[in-house]
Amino acid sequence: MSVEDRKTIRFVDEGKNSLVMLINQRKLPNKIEYVKCYTPERLAKSIKSMEIRGAPAIGVAAAMALALAASLSDAEKEEDLYVDIERTAALIRSTRPTANNLFWAVERIISKARETLGSVEQIRNAIVDEAILMAEEDIEVNRTMGEYGASLLNDGDTVGTICNAGWLATAGVYGTALGVIKVAHELGKKISVIAMETRPLLQGARLSAFELKQDDIDLRVITDSMIGYCLYKGMIDKFICGADRIVTSSGGHVLNKIGTYTAALAADRHRVPFYVASPISTFDFKNRLDDVIVEERNPLEIEKIGEYKITPTGVPVFNPAFDITSPELIRGIITEKGIIEAPIKDNILQILQK
Amino acid sequence: MSVEDRKTIRFVDEGKNSLVMLINQRKLPNKIEYVKCYTPERLAKSIKSMEIRGAPAIGVAAAMALALAASLSDAEKEEDLYVDIERTAALIRSTRPTANNLFWAVERIISKARETLGSVEQIRNAIVDEAILMAEEDIEVNRTMGEYGASLLNDGDTVGTICNAGWLATAGVYGTALGVIKVAHELGKKISVIAMETRPLLQGARLSAFELKQDDIDLRVITDSMIGYCLYKGMIDKFICGADRIVTSSGGHVLNKIGTYTAALAADRHRVPFYVASPISTFDFKNRLDDVIVEERNPLEIEKIGEYKITPTGVPVFNPAFDITSPELIRGIITEKGIIEAPIKDNILQILQK
Repeated sequence: MSVEDRKTIRFVDEGKNSLVMLINQRKLPNKIEYVKCYTPERLAKSIKSMEIRGAPAIGVAAAMALALAASLSDAEKEEDLYVDIERTAALIRSTRPTANNLFWAVERIISKARETLGSVEQIRNAIVDEAILMAEEDIEVNRTMGEYGASLLNDGDTVGTICNAGWLATAGVYGTALGVIKVAHELGKKISVIAMETRPLLQGARLSAFELKQDDIDLRVITDSMIGYCLYKGMIDKFICGADRIVTSSGGHVLNKIGTYTAALAADRHRVPFYVASPISTFDFKNRLDDVIVEERNPLEIEKIGEYKITPTGVPVFNPAFDITSPELIRGIITEKGIIEAPIKDNILQILQK
Repeated sequence: MSVEDRKTIRFVDEGKNSLVMLINQRKLPNKIEYVKCYTPERLAKSIKSMEIRGAPAIGVAAAMALALAASLSDAEKEEDLYVDIERTAALIRSTRPTANNLFWAVERIISKARETLGSVEQIRNAIVDEAILMAEEDIEVNRTMGEYGASLLNDGDTVGTICNAGWLATAGVYGTALGVIKVAHELGKKISVIAMETRPLLQGARLSAFELKQDDIDLRVITDSMIGYCLYKGMIDKFICGADRIVTSSGGHVLNKIGTYTAALAADRHRVPFYVASPISTFDFKNRLDDVIVEERNPLEIEKIGEYKITPTGVPVFNPAFDITSPELIRGIITEKGIIEAPIKDNILQILQK
């Protein structure tokens, strides 16, 4: 796939006929199919159902949902435009409550609108431009993170990862955790990957495997349950994952795909460095850890895989989408402003001063 | 299901027309279907493909495979009978190299044959009787284990478990780890279970859920990746699993379904007692840990679930069926001779003296 094809989402600016196009990640790797969203509601559905997923990608999707709302709005007065925008903002915030980037993106678009002086049309254009800019910035940010992070990987390393923190999880091209691996690979380091399949939705087995194979990076897929044994066998030198929210007030607790915490505990036991690669937009500088909502998703995600029904009818399941990894388990957080080194608790706020 | 229905395997003694009937566990919970094995080869295939699985159950299956070989043998001389038996023994040993019970059962049947003085017919009958006895003994042993183990569970406990160590994993009725839970439940203790789904073959989500639901024991299914988070949330009071082999020479390393070790590490971190319920037939008193083979199974088990293809074509997977939990992570091993308490290393051989 060309660099242009490696964009997960794009805003097609056609005034009232604007739309957002995105790769349907539920269909990968078996099919590359695009979803066309002509309304913010359809885009919200894509976010909720994880047709688009990954913290940075859904941040951009949130911004584009507001740009779509502004484009479709019939408002002639500024106040009316804000009513339409706030309605979409509320809808978007409700889709994936744990993802910080979603809230960050909504705030950024609304701030941009508020500081734009001019006609409704000018405000609308400012929002659309900002959303498109955010997608471009995301790609640059990930490239920068990749460069910082690549310094942590040695020639010959095998890197464990969970979920998909690749270009599919962002606006495109690089990705966060897989961006680090790709840049190291581009620099000529031989890197192998062990990808946890990441139940229930199997983003590791489907999406990370798809990406890494495209880039000719050596990989093996394991079930999530194998992470401890792979570490026990000395098969993993480092672990890198992305994040959906990093809470600074608690010293850097990382909310990421369910399974991350279990992997971090196992890595810690085996003294394998555990890294998180995550842009500043994922950092939550406001909330207390206890106030963060851990999204619980539809039981069907566990009960059925494709058409194959697993659990007996009537047996309840528990389906939290994220878990919480405490900062003492983390060796470093790779950001576009540099690497926050352990002890994370002591160093996390320094990143702000840069 | 009646007690009689809760038998996983039975030997139908009809001389040369003898057969072994077993519940096809690949089809559960969606369908209750029996496989009829008229030859040791067909029974070996059932063991290999996990139509029957669980360490105690495949021990009994191994014994019945030899009983079937003896029944079908045309040997008129004792030596010729042993040729047929040894051929089947070699076949059976190759099916699931990690399961201790398989080797134990083969040894026991051959010893029984060797100590039987008499005609070929008498030796054959002694083998069949021994195989049937082993199935009956297994049920009794599990009941006894359940009684010992139930003392460890308190009213109101939530117990984590992996794979299926229930009646389906044994000759029937109780099971090992789930046997403990069932006896506690029968004694009037309110026990809830959190069952790890157990990828790749999902024995937790399919089989343990099926059993516990039948017995009206409160349960929830989680993906394997959720075990750390459930412990973090304080949702689990104790963890109990079965075992496929316990190596005494190393102080009690437990080979059990892949994912056990990862769960044990997480339980250890959260100071949640981790118990193994396992009959003496699972103890390996001979081999060094390094000499035990960890079975690797067909990659297809990971690549596809039902008809749903997960990984992109050409992406390799790693599929070890077991992992190794070190004795310092284990609070107790429940056997039919009593509970081996921590430190396991110091206490494991005392069980022999009883």
